[in-house]
Amino acid sequence: MKNYTYLELHTFTKDIFIKCGMPLDDAIQAADVLLSADMRGIDSHGVARLSGYVRLYEADRANMKAQWKVIHQTPSTATIDADQGLGLVVAPHAMDIAIEKAKQVGTGWVAIQNSNHFGIAAYHAMKALPHDMIGMAMTNASPLVAPTHSKQRMLGTNPICMVFPAGKHLPIVADMATSAAANGKLEIAQRSGKEIPKGWVQTKDGQKSTDANELKKGGSLLPLGGHKGYAMASIVDIMTSVLSGANYGPWVPPFVSFLNPLENLPGKGIGHFVGAMRIDAFRPAEDFKSHIDNWIDAFKNAERIDEKQQVIIPGEPEFWMQNEREKNGIPLNDLVEKDLLDLGDKLGVKLV
Amino acid sequence: MKNYTYLELHTFTKDIFIKCGMPLDDAIQAADVLLSADMRGIDSHGVARLSGYVRLYEADRANMKAQWKVIHQTPSTATIDADQGLGLVVAPHAMDIAIEKAKQVGTGWVAIQNSNHFGIAAYHAMKALPHDMIGMAMTNASPLVAPTHSKQRMLGTNPICMVFPAGKHLPIVADMATSAAANGKLEIAQRSGKEIPKGWVQTKDGQKSTDANELKKGGSLLPLGGHKGYAMASIVDIMTSVLSGANYGPWVPPFVSFLNPLENLPGKGIGHFVGAMRIDAFRPAEDFKSHIDNWIDAFKNAERIDEKQQVIIPGEPEFWMQNEREKNGIPLNDLVEKDLLDLGDKLGVKLV
Repeated sequence: MKNYTYLELHTFTKDIFIKCGMPLDDAIQAADVLLSADMRGIDSHGVARLSGYVRLYEADRANMKAQWKVIHQTPSTATIDADQGLGLVVAPHAMDIAIEKAKQVGTGWVAIQNSNHFGIAAYHAMKALPHDMIGMAMTNASPLVAPTHSKQRMLGTNPICMVFPAGKHLPIVADMATSAAANGKLEIAQRSGKEIPKGWVQTKDGQKSTDANELKKGGSLLPLGGHKGYAMASIVDIMTSVLSGANYGPWVPPFVSFLNPLENLPGKGIGHFVGAMRIDAFRPAEDFKSHIDNWIDAFKNAERIDEKQQVIIPGEPEFWMQNEREKNGIPLNDLVEKDLLDLGDKLGVKLV
Repeated sequence: MKNYTYLELHTFTKDIFIKCGMPLDDAIQAADVLLSADMRGIDSHGVARLSGYVRLYEADRANMKAQWKVIHQTPSTATIDADQGLGLVVAPHAMDIAIEKAKQVGTGWVAIQNSNHFGIAAYHAMKALPHDMIGMAMTNASPLVAPTHSKQRMLGTNPICMVFPAGKHLPIVADMATSAAANGKLEIAQRSGKEIPKGWVQTKDGQKSTDANELKKGGSLLPLGGHKGYAMASIVDIMTSVLSGANYGPWVPPFVSFLNPLENLPGKGIGHFVGAMRIDAFRPAEDFKSHIDNWIDAFKNAERIDEKQQVIIPGEPEFWMQNEREKNGIPLNDLVEKDLLDLGDKLGVKLV
């Protein structure tokens, strides 16, 4: 375990993308998104995934010189073809378009097809905050989750993120997978050799399991809280991909390059959906923000079960982590560090 | 247990509302919404609630002659003051406005303040379907759910509904509470004297419980799947009420008339949020609908755990129920039937 500064890892990430042929401004953008995950403590979605993106490029499944374009639009909507590029690059542009449309007509909504994974949803949604807008971002992902009563992997962990600006307080950033547990939590349990709670995974035959390695044995993740989580994951799958023209359900191309996409795909790449809503399209932004402050105060002061365990506002731990890592840097575990060093050696980029 | 026809219960419900001073067209609309819940098998949200609405009226907390009005708007948004009327009446009008805005600029979004409960979210969202639009509806509700680490009731069961039109298949109707279990499920367990699964409720001290009567003892409902359900319920609370100017969190006025609203309320009534998105604002509607058919076929054919237990598409059981009740009528249990007969006696309306 060793700590690196934001700048060290950002520079490295950007230079790796440039070595893969990505233009400078896209490489900076992609590094911004990946590093925002590390800074916020979502280690599974940050530089730990960098070599995964590079392998997709090497397998000719990610286009580092992608030229995304708007293929359809109305005053409040747009559909983007991401040209098989990285969601890390196209999703922030899609948010810019959503914000611009919200300035014009109150709200803006952009569906994206033909993309690859976009990192953490919160990065994209949070672009709305400086404009006094509510931000939204969702994406589908490699199928790992079985719908209720099935043992087949049909849905991704399909996160939903919505963010709300506050006045004196930090914004509310609700960003969550629609599966009971994200893959990152399984990996932590695997490393520590611990059992996982019931309700996270099932075996390949659909039996309940507490084995953190169940996915490697052909098992599947379970939706959050049963059939309601299945319904929420379905909403995300449809909004991001049936609406945009991307692949959905079992056809979503896997993030890992050693698994090939299925044949006869019904769409292009994976899909995202982002949105921005101008608060003063509903009520004055200052009123909204002062009531959000009041909402936060009420929830922070809700009666605790255990005096020592405070009630958490959605997004709060990630701000604490960002604060901590700005001071002390980003710790990389030995496996991730070695992976980055090997990647750097291969492409001729020094980590420090 | 006795069965009544749709028309018998619709006529009764409409006439009760008229006796409370509601104009005819509003009374028909309110009866449509309540009866749609009974027809779809959501018995907890149908005529079983009729006397609850009347008690709110008698307590001077619901305005049966309400004149809702749009108090702010942009091309894609509107905010409505419901004039303390029933959500049953104002929410369908709000959806009409959302649909009209979607026709003009691609999407339409309406926030509603100063309202009362709106019945099932699905009724409102489904108004989008004949227009080849995606429909959305959410509402907050009486505080019964404790946020993670708290023993205080701070959130309602806050449902989210999204609906998607299909081609040859029935539409997808995803409508779910963001709590682990809705109150209706507790009532079923109470009647049968059964224990409920862990994770549905906690005691007034925040301890886990399997007692179906825990709410009556000061306990609280738990959010769906822990902190993620808390975050989702928070999103609904903010979108419906902080954005519209309604009450939020612990201040949401209780549906039951024997509990008084808190003092110094930060907003007006309860809040809803509805929306409509024109599918051809993103891609041709026929393409979308044929891919929804393909999505449904894929999920219906997903490998089953138990050959006898099929995978369910969100909304499917409610269509089955509607089909069944169109043939055989709506069964009322003895308690609900007596409640309606008493109500009819009091207001001079015959049930049949």
